[in-house]
Amino acid sequence: MITNINIREKYDKITEYWTPKIIGELNGQHVKLAKVKGDFLWHSHDNEDELFIVYKGTLYIEFRDKTVTVPEGQLIIVPKGVEHRPYTNGEEVWIMLLEPKEILHTGNVIDEKTVTNLEWI
Amino acid sequence: MITNINIREKYDKITEYWTPKIIGELNGQHVKLAKVKGDFLWHSHDNEDELFIVYKGTLYIEFRDKTVTVPEGQLIIVPKGVEHRPYTNGEEVWIMLLEPKEILHTGNVIDEKTVTNLEWI
Repeated sequence: MITNINIREKYDKITEYWTPKIIGELNGQHVKLAKVKGDFLWHSHDNEDELFIVYKGTLYIEFRDKTVTVPEGQLIIVPKGVEHRPYTNGEEVWIMLLEPKEILHTGNVIDEKTVTNLEWI
Repeated sequence: MITNINIREKYDKITEYWTPKIIGELNGQHVKLAKVKGDFLWHSHDNEDELFIVYKGTLYIEFRDKTVTVPEGQLIIVPKGVEHRPYTNGEEVWIMLLEPKEILHTGNVIDEKTVTNLEWI
């Protein structure tokens, strides 16, 4: 069904950190929302570029040669193959992600943070 | 170069209506921003789904069987092949678009609103 999607209402349904939820699908990709807080793991995606849009708070993404600060209202695209580690400065941060459907959010790394069956909300 | 992109600052560079500007690229798709006002034309995209995120104002999308209202903070995905006509209620509306690079924003229709060489900002 073609309908409008209220991003804020979708965020209200998210209760876990670092667990992206799917809100839409287009051209073989998922639009996902996540609440994140604290540290994530170093990883990369061999074949997929990844888009992060920050809706609330400030996201930091550490690369091997620098750290990029992405405040609310900004976005960043991480090209395939580039090692990165998202984290927040202790605050809860709301992000929108866009990436191919088959991707694992932890990329080339499987650990306790890896969620393999993403849910729609 | 991997860097943060300030969405608001990009909008400030847009001076024409219905003329999407590219701000990013991932997985063969462009992330685009546009300011729109008034009526657009009926069209569809044979092979590409299209994502609209509304950043300011209220976007309306007319379909053959209904009209969907998409206010600020909401998004809509128009599946490939579905005829649609975006418009605004006279106000200036700011949208983000995500669609494959090779797409024409007027889809299967070429008219005076068609912009064939989209610019990066």
